[in-house]
Amino acid sequence: MADVSADEKKEDLRKAFPQSRRIYVVGSRPDIRVPMREISLSPTRSRAGKILHENAPVRVYDTSGPWGDENFHGDIRSGLPAVRTPWILARGDVEAVAPSVVVPAVKTACGSEQFDRGERKIYRAKRGAHITQMDYARRGIITPEMEFVAIRENMKLQEARDEAEKSPRRRLSFMHAGESFGAAIPPEITPEFVRSEIARGRAILPANINHPEAEPMIIGRNFLVKINTNIGNSAIASGIEEEVDKMRRSCLWGGDTLMDLSTGRNIHATREWILRNCPVPVGTVPIYQALEKVGGKSEEISWEVFRETLIEQAEQGVDYFTIHACVKKDFVPLAASRMTGIVSRGGSIMAKWCQRHGAENFLWTHWDEICEIMAAYDIGVSIGDGLRPGSIADANDEAQFAELKAQGELTKRAWEHGVQVMNEGPGHVPAQLIRENMLNQLEWCHEAPFYTLGPLTTDIAPGYDHITSAIGAALIGWYGCAMLCYVTPKEHLGLPNRDDVRAGVIAYKIAAHAADLAKGHPAAQYRDNALSRARFEFRWEDQFALSLDPEHARRLHDESLPQEAAKRAAFCSMCGPNFCSMRISGELSGDNPAGE
Amino acid sequence: MADVSADEKKEDLRKAFPQSRRIYVVGSRPDIRVPMREISLSPTRSRAGKILHENAPVRVYDTSGPWGDENFHGDIRSGLPAVRTPWILARGDVEAVAPSVVVPAVKTACGSEQFDRGERKIYRAKRGAHITQMDYARRGIITPEMEFVAIRENMKLQEARDEAEKSPRRRLSFMHAGESFGAAIPPEITPEFVRSEIARGRAILPANINHPEAEPMIIGRNFLVKINTNIGNSAIASGIEEEVDKMRRSCLWGGDTLMDLSTGRNIHATREWILRNCPVPVGTVPIYQALEKVGGKSEEISWEVFRETLIEQAEQGVDYFTIHACVKKDFVPLAASRMTGIVSRGGSIMAKWCQRHGAENFLWTHWDEICEIMAAYDIGVSIGDGLRPGSIADANDEAQFAELKAQGELTKRAWEHGVQVMNEGPGHVPAQLIRENMLNQLEWCHEAPFYTLGPLTTDIAPGYDHITSAIGAALIGWYGCAMLCYVTPKEHLGLPNRDDVRAGVIAYKIAAHAADLAKGHPAAQYRDNALSRARFEFRWEDQFALSLDPEHARRLHDESLPQEAAKRAAFCSMCGPNFCSMRISGELSGDNPAGE
Repeated sequence: MADVSADEKKEDLRKAFPQSRRIYVVGSRPDIRVPMREISLSPTRSRAGKILHENAPVRVYDTSGPWGDENFHGDIRSGLPAVRTPWILARGDVEAVAPSVVVPAVKTACGSEQFDRGERKIYRAKRGAHITQMDYARRGIITPEMEFVAIRENMKLQEARDEAEKSPRRRLSFMHAGESFGAAIPPEITPEFVRSEIARGRAILPANINHPEAEPMIIGRNFLVKINTNIGNSAIASGIEEEVDKMRRSCLWGGDTLMDLSTGRNIHATREWILRNCPVPVGTVPIYQALEKVGGKSEEISWEVFRETLIEQAEQGVDYFTIHACVKKDFVPLAASRMTGIVSRGGSIMAKWCQRHGAENFLWTHWDEICEIMAAYDIGVSIGDGLRPGSIADANDEAQFAELKAQGELTKRAWEHGVQVMNEGPGHVPAQLIRENMLNQLEWCHEAPFYTLGPLTTDIAPGYDHITSAIGAALIGWYGCAMLCYVTPKEHLGLPNRDDVRAGVIAYKIAAHAADLAKGHPAAQYRDNALSRARFEFRWEDQFALSLDPEHARRLHDESLPQEAAKRAAFCSMCGPNFCSMRISGELSGDNPAGE
Repeated sequence: MADVSADEKKEDLRKAFPQSRRIYVVGSRPDIRVPMREISLSPTRSRAGKILHENAPVRVYDTSGPWGDENFHGDIRSGLPAVRTPWILARGDVEAVAPSVVVPAVKTACGSEQFDRGERKIYRAKRGAHITQMDYARRGIITPEMEFVAIRENMKLQEARDEAEKSPRRRLSFMHAGESFGAAIPPEITPEFVRSEIARGRAILPANINHPEAEPMIIGRNFLVKINTNIGNSAIASGIEEEVDKMRRSCLWGGDTLMDLSTGRNIHATREWILRNCPVPVGTVPIYQALEKVGGKSEEISWEVFRETLIEQAEQGVDYFTIHACVKKDFVPLAASRMTGIVSRGGSIMAKWCQRHGAENFLWTHWDEICEIMAAYDIGVSIGDGLRPGSIADANDEAQFAELKAQGELTKRAWEHGVQVMNEGPGHVPAQLIRENMLNQLEWCHEAPFYTLGPLTTDIAPGYDHITSAIGAALIGWYGCAMLCYVTPKEHLGLPNRDDVRAGVIAYKIAAHAADLAKGHPAAQYRDNALSRARFEFRWEDQFALSLDPEHARRLHDESLPQEAAKRAAFCSMCGPNFCSMRISGELSGDNPAGE
């Protein structure tokens, strides 16, 4: 396993995020240290170079964990620090256990190493103990995890308040009123608000006690819209090293959660490397590994194999499971006349299982046992949408909505076990039908967070489905969807590589942020304002530094004006100096320094 | 001027659009020949290779003109055939005139050639004649241009009707009901409907009598959403050859109109090369050339210089002018406290002019004379939005809406002259404020077509503004916007090159198509259905051929599975064979041939 050297990592970071440093905002106790990235800005200058005023640094939400801290060792063999272990143990309701599943050492042609767990223990709830964040929230307890996310969600608010209001122009703290479609976003996110949202099931904080490396984050309609990135190999492509690298980069660019969808070799070993090095919650689809265990024959999957897989992954530290329990036997025929049948991997596996056995989906019939397992580790469940539409034509059809109603039933039953729940959604949906998805989900699934794949708003652009779906994702995020599963340009065409992951993450950061602005999240607009101000004042380096992908923005600027001086010029190659509207506008009002 | 060889062009075409051929649908007379691209599809086969049934070819809207006809000579020195000249002359209401403006031969360091106009004449309306498409429409005349666009807009409808309904699955002609926000899209576009929409000003058919090379197309809320691409050099970058190449490619990839925004050297000569070779309507912003004529000093622009420029461009064949007549003196101070001031080039020039002269915008005061000029050549006007917001913070502010109301006034006055009108709109607008833009424009501008730049839904992603704006463009297109001006990844960073043009066009084809689906255009969903069916049946080559950018889709597929056999395989590298949901789903229902 080749490692990233500390120097390479620092260089990577500096290039990816110039003018940035890692800071930690400390909460009510010294071990609650919430990471943020602070972007320093240059002063506003007159054209003659005189400093007119300083510009306060801007703090942004940072999902990169220790990978974004340039003082971190960066050794993937050692893994990340277990920040949450003291919190978990202090509650006195878990105990160390021996691994339930003996995982045979993998012998494969590709010679992958096992991650060395060292002294790491495996925990589960003590008998009779209720240890999920939902359990605590219902009992009125604000956990350190809850306080952590409250600080995280507010990051820009405080800044906005502290802002000196000296500028003659519109203030950086200005924001438009949102249109939230009935959401209940407070003017400030408090730990108590976090607790109450988790208690009523309207938000989840996925945090397996065996993944103490993960930094707490929250998924819910009244918080910032989150994005998930999928990685994972297939039987055709990629290996562990490449997947760990994609994971690290996904977190750097802004993925809030990560699903390991590996279906190829070394599923267990790949997951271990990822979990020990991943600072964000990790999700999986356990049926994939169960299918591998029975040699790819879906009819041979049994409850016993599946149960063993759940526990194996629970002990490793998976934070949420996607479980396709609502592909019920009677729903399968509803998909028969579709344009594109069943397009969910998990959904097609379970549909085939039901058909071959002539029996009800065993995930449905074993739901309570599944919930008991999840509750013992505080694993969230993402109830899968195995019958999601795979084409515009199939959107919002009977099969899809029958399953969504069933998801609502299982949501309630999971809550009875204290399990945190979200619901997965489509898929391919034309814009005018997206709202109905959100409204039905809110009603039928009792406001549990919705987690959708896009949706793609047209089928005609393979190779650009990060864009076809960013449109749908922005819409459904605005309407109330809590988390958006990214789609890369490779969707429908192949396994994404590192560049595809980057393109997918950025497209989805855009969609999520557009949704946050639209629904009126109080902390959303500050960064837009800061960047626009920098743009107007021709602080090019600040404009790059404040952008979602500084390296990319700089590269495009360099293409026509690579000279350093151009990074201080009051124009660019788009219009040249005589036609630069911002320059003329500055000359006009006299208060754009670059136009003096 | 280097030319594209006929062979290169053919090869280009085959690569860009495999399985495609140019066809012409003939109208009520033999000289109305509407070009379409017909994509042939492979038969549906069983896994054993047996042909189960043939798949009818799919026709798609084609903006490429003769460039998309592989039998065309492809010589840019000869220009395109003047398809409209017989129609224009047959009406007997125009006369040949001598050029009003003597354009001095350009002498520049870059040594560009002049296009040789040969026998081409310059026309204008005979004294007292009313020759605009709006004039004809009001008089109840259906011109060949109107019939041409009716055939064009219906292209997929006929197919859908002809479809043999043999498939056990959902029919290819299936489509969802749209949500059109009060639009009046008929089930079929007839020539009479085109006429009536033009007569009431709800649609425009920009067609300067001196640009007979352009193929008629229509811009209006009740038609397919159109996209405009901007090209043009700046003082900093690019030359004629590069711009002509961008034009040709923009048309190939799907740009419906083209604006030449050149501000650098050789404005006249560049425009001549473009007009003589451009099969779509061409727009310009005449104030740019006027500014060049006075050496870049905006205060020295006069009505006389501007008038001369209008006539010069009218005689060359520009189909629509963007005129920033509504940046009124009293509106300029409204922009003073903005986050980013005035960000329209034309807007900032006129604002500065007003301020320096302490006088009303001369474009406003000379509006009737401007309209008389435009009417004499049937030039459409796109009333500019010089005060559009340049940042999220400035969206929907007083300056912007004051100008929009004024645009409504000038719209009515232009209609009195028989001039076809559209209104330009923003810019940067968060999603929740987009609808207000559309509603205000419809009300204040009397349903004249709206033509917006994006809008960008967030400011934080320079380098990806084709995506931030495709989200806004899809939304406003859905709400009723008639034409979307593309934004490339270079926006805010530099002058777009050929790759940027491609990325911008495709992003906007996606946005426009997503909007067409959402508003329920009767011909929109057929292509999605055909592509999805091909996808489900693992007809990979058909999937590529039906996509917006076949070459790109194929390249992404090739990255992991370059083998020819993979283009017939019932899986891809995303999931591998055991986890391919479509394969499993096919096995399940027994009616996906690939799953037999």
